[in-house]
Amino acid sequence: MTAAGPISLNTITVKTWTLPQVIEACARHGIRAISPWRDVVQAVGLDAAAKQIRDAGLKVTGLCRGGMFPAADAAGRAAAIEDNRRAIAEAHAIGADCLVVLGGGLPKASKDLPGAREMMREGLHAILPDARAAGVTLALEPLHPMTCADRSVLSTLGQALDLCEELGAGTGIALDVYHVWWDPDLARQMQRAKGRIAGFHVCDWKVPTTDLVFDRGMPGEGVIDIPAIRAMAETAGWQGGVEVEILSNRWWAEDPEAVMRAVKASHAFC
Amino acid sequence: MTAAGPISLNTITVKTWTLPQVIEACARHGIRAISPWRDVVQAVGLDAAAKQIRDAGLKVTGLCRGGMFPAADAAGRAAAIEDNRRAIAEAHAIGADCLVVLGGGLPKASKDLPGAREMMREGLHAILPDARAAGVTLALEPLHPMTCADRSVLSTLGQALDLCEELGAGTGIALDVYHVWWDPDLARQMQRAKGRIAGFHVCDWKVPTTDLVFDRGMPGEGVIDIPAIRAMAETAGWQGGVEVEILSNRWWAEDPEAVMRAVKASHAFC
Repeated sequence: MTAAGPISLNTITVKTWTLPQVIEACARHGIRAISPWRDVVQAVGLDAAAKQIRDAGLKVTGLCRGGMFPAADAAGRAAAIEDNRRAIAEAHAIGADCLVVLGGGLPKASKDLPGAREMMREGLHAILPDARAAGVTLALEPLHPMTCADRSVLSTLGQALDLCEELGAGTGIALDVYHVWWDPDLARQMQRAKGRIAGFHVCDWKVPTTDLVFDRGMPGEGVIDIPAIRAMAETAGWQGGVEVEILSNRWWAEDPEAVMRAVKASHAFC
Repeated sequence: MTAAGPISLNTITVKTWTLPQVIEACARHGIRAISPWRDVVQAVGLDAAAKQIRDAGLKVTGLCRGGMFPAADAAGRAAAIEDNRRAIAEAHAIGADCLVVLGGGLPKASKDLPGAREMMREGLHAILPDARAAGVTLALEPLHPMTCADRSVLSTLGQALDLCEELGAGTGIALDVYHVWWDPDLARQMQRAKGRIAGFHVCDWKVPTTDLVFDRGMPGEGVIDIPAIRAMAETAGWQGGVEVEILSNRWWAEDPEAVMRAVKASHAFC
């Protein structure tokens, strides 16, 4: 198997750092790409962030994150759509390859999962013209089914690909091994994903996992056969390296410099 | 929508009770069916358990649980198969409608998920003749994908139905709403499940969920639209009522009598 492509650092992995700190550390560690979260960009201001990233010569593999469309009322849904339009503009401004788009969870007190999925679909249709106009790919990211109630009614790669096929140009998939590794239908869906992968995220599934959101492992710490999934992604046309995105209370408690070293060491497990 | 059929009490819901205590409480509360775990049966002895259940006139909707086939070496896999043969004999002895069969997790230190799924498949083929001879349906229970690493490489209803189709007579599905509610392919798979549902388990998905195994809610405490899934099951031919199976550190800390009252009250949410 070939080695994994270059690392992109998702800023949530070192979430106590500001954008300038991330940029400085990437330069020192030889990391040439990042994927920032919106709050990190907004904290320094959009124009300043765009200039800092450009001046550093960093590739931007994505902006995290848009989506989260379902809401209990029409005003909430309209607000989500407006916020996504701002996110698309931000992604364009910083030269991001894509805007990572999450499904969002059930509206408060709702048990209507099909209804929430329809709200997600309507939201995507609403923002697609903006994304196309800005040249920003909407990278639909299915999240692990354990997040269905409160974070993502977009649960499987197959479901995300169905949406891509419906929406057409301007959409793609953000594939995170953590969210799809368990899927018995993965190999077949990865064939369907040909030409549609817009981001490839890595972390690992620890045994045991003690939190449904914030207990991800560094690649190598868990049981996911990351190279096997990467090989499927590459067969599907992906050539963009590995974005390391670790949501972890344990790693967040470490010195970010130690995290940077661990990120680089984890490349061998990708 | 019609009301849910009669309750069956899965003994794990009141796990501090012995089988005689469960039987006595069911009589007092007007519950006419149970689904015991093997340790509860074994604690009083198989013959005594069978007689007590028979004398009480209780229906046995299932025996929990067989399966768990993947193992790191051939001896471990053979031991699992032998244990499943004993479980089939126990299910037959207590007159259970089915043996609930779990996939089992990855073997220790393994990242080979396809390999573990093949071990599961081979284990099922190995015990199928015993199940057929005993007249015990193997009820394949897909578990939530969050249990894939350590409990169940059988992750979706679609995957379980593929196995049923391959294995044929003597197999069916144990459908637990907790494990399948999130599935975007659920409606389609429930049509495939016609005539194959051998058990219908209920509990609820709480928001937030704080433990990957032991934080299930009583029906009504969470976000699962249980009546909608029950309607799909009934359209697929299920007429067997609702088995209440709550794995919950919180409910286990309650007085089992209070749990019994909550189980009965939860019927309105099924």
